[in-house]
Amino acid sequence: MCIEMLIDRLIKRITELSAPIVVGLDPRINQIPSYMKEAAYAKRGRTPAAVAEMFLSFNREIIDCVHDIVPAVKLQIAIYEQFGSAGIEAYLQTIHYAKEKGLIVIGDIKRGDIDSIAGAYSNMHIGRVDIQGESVEIAKTDFITVSPYMGFDSVEPYISDCRKYDKGLFVLVKTSNKGSKDVQDVLMSSSREFFDYDERPEIPMPCPGCKITENLQPLYAHVGSLVETWGAEFVGEYGYSNIGAVVGVTHPQDAVELRKFMPSTFFLMPGYGTQGGSGKDLKDLWAKNYGAIVNNSRGITGAYLTEKYKCDEKDFAKASRQAVLDMKADLEAFL
Amino acid sequence: MCIEMLIDRLIKRITELSAPIVVGLDPRINQIPSYMKEAAYAKRGRTPAAVAEMFLSFNREIIDCVHDIVPAVKLQIAIYEQFGSAGIEAYLQTIHYAKEKGLIVIGDIKRGDIDSIAGAYSNMHIGRVDIQGESVEIAKTDFITVSPYMGFDSVEPYISDCRKYDKGLFVLVKTSNKGSKDVQDVLMSSSREFFDYDERPEIPMPCPGCKITENLQPLYAHVGSLVETWGAEFVGEYGYSNIGAVVGVTHPQDAVELRKFMPSTFFLMPGYGTQGGSGKDLKDLWAKNYGAIVNNSRGITGAYLTEKYKCDEKDFAKASRQAVLDMKADLEAFL
Repeated sequence: MCIEMLIDRLIKRITELSAPIVVGLDPRINQIPSYMKEAAYAKRGRTPAAVAEMFLSFNREIIDCVHDIVPAVKLQIAIYEQFGSAGIEAYLQTIHYAKEKGLIVIGDIKRGDIDSIAGAYSNMHIGRVDIQGESVEIAKTDFITVSPYMGFDSVEPYISDCRKYDKGLFVLVKTSNKGSKDVQDVLMSSSREFFDYDERPEIPMPCPGCKITENLQPLYAHVGSLVETWGAEFVGEYGYSNIGAVVGVTHPQDAVELRKFMPSTFFLMPGYGTQGGSGKDLKDLWAKNYGAIVNNSRGITGAYLTEKYKCDEKDFAKASRQAVLDMKADLEAFL
Repeated sequence: MCIEMLIDRLIKRITELSAPIVVGLDPRINQIPSYMKEAAYAKRGRTPAAVAEMFLSFNREIIDCVHDIVPAVKLQIAIYEQFGSAGIEAYLQTIHYAKEKGLIVIGDIKRGDIDSIAGAYSNMHIGRVDIQGESVEIAKTDFITVSPYMGFDSVEPYISDCRKYDKGLFVLVKTSNKGSKDVQDVLMSSSREFFDYDERPEIPMPCPGCKITENLQPLYAHVGSLVETWGAEFVGEYGYSNIGAVVGVTHPQDAVELRKFMPSTFFLMPGYGTQGGSGKDLKDLWAKNYGAIVNNSRGITGAYLTEKYKCDEKDFAKASRQAVLDMKADLEAFL
């Protein structure tokens, strides 16, 4: 292949920088330095447009200070979407700026809908929208997160755009929150005899990741095995696929279990720092060409507000850079 | 209670109009009458802003022609979101217009994320965002759809806003697409002994909706029983809760099964017409105070493009009105 695949570019960059780290750009109003807030309010009042403006300024400075030490940033779209169209504009412009600075961008959108609707989401986030023959790229995101609850045909339109535009996905498998057990941990039959295969021919054999008895496995293991199958056609030279999975750092044992039958699936791991995960939990996962990237949002962008990195608020982005370097050192002990 | 609950207002209006129908406002460029398209392109070129303008004009005319014969409209946000911030603006303005015309509005957003992020989505869609003490209402949606894959703590922030602002949810249970079987239909243990209840005390006893053996039930039945529990505190005078469920018309037998152990959960049923469902499938569900509302999108908004309703394109919204009346007649045969 002449052009390097997305997942290979990501892993190469992680290796060059020794940084399996993605910086989450999820600003909150109370994290924005007051001089930046006041400037936006003075110009636009206490409006969504003011918030959008301060988020964009904030993100740009963070990007300026970290783009040479991390391979990627992740934007949680809800943080922007909550401020309506102005917020979405800040989301799109942040992506644009990050791409200009050479970063790989993950859009954390967790969408999941029937195929025609998934197609619309895909158009915007990783594809193109067609306006009467005019092909328009709305977001320039490289990877997006998607939800598997509605099954393969709800994910297929994204996979089709991954094929067309060399983009990638992270499908939710085992999420970092406590409530993930309510649905993801329910025990299901892993024995073939319980499935009506005549009616459901597309379900592959459930994976062998059963932790309880030979006949039962948690749902997330089933979803994990589906994701491994979906990604098979996109495996690059480091052995991982453009179709990855979201697996919380907060469940390190589950991640190690999942790795056994998801050998080609790269993991995006939220939950580092604020949600309780730490570097030592990840050692096993990095044994082969990395294979997982860890997200840290508030721990980096809000660093200047903590005791450890306290500084003049004008230097907030420098504090973020130091927080990245410290996280790198924490992780390196286990690499 | 002095103020009528949202779900009661919805059921009352369904009853007054004999119309358990929600019109899906999900325009596509190729559905927009050419005079409307050309006007927008002439003014704004082939841009997202032009599409946003034509979607809004289109929706307004449909709303003008149906607001007195249906209780509610549903907007699929992906259709708008794909055109970026301009699209989101059209989404919000359509909601605003529909509310002015007295319609109940369902935002079909299918979001699902960890609690702090769910809070952000909830702020925008059914709550308020706080901008330095200024409380701003971004969308005026009454109900939104949400995904259960991440468990209760990912749904709780929405429930909290339902409590605060008398809003409602439709949680995905059994969706209308073919692929819904991949995850929603997996068989899980319904027998208490397979669950580690010490570690997972919040999971209620799985429901008795097992269709295969006494010990196995599909995942959607488990999710359905969770939703019934979540909605218990919001049950209104007609016996249904503000916390409803999405159950596809395309799986009528599943819906009837689900009703047995979800007696207080109102169903939003997509998949009528285009996706294959029909009125006779719903008879049992309407036995008690309705209890389900059926969505039809393309079948109504795209009516003027079909052989049956062919007309001058300037009369497209009149064709939509006729399509609603015909759907009502189709359904009334089973009421």
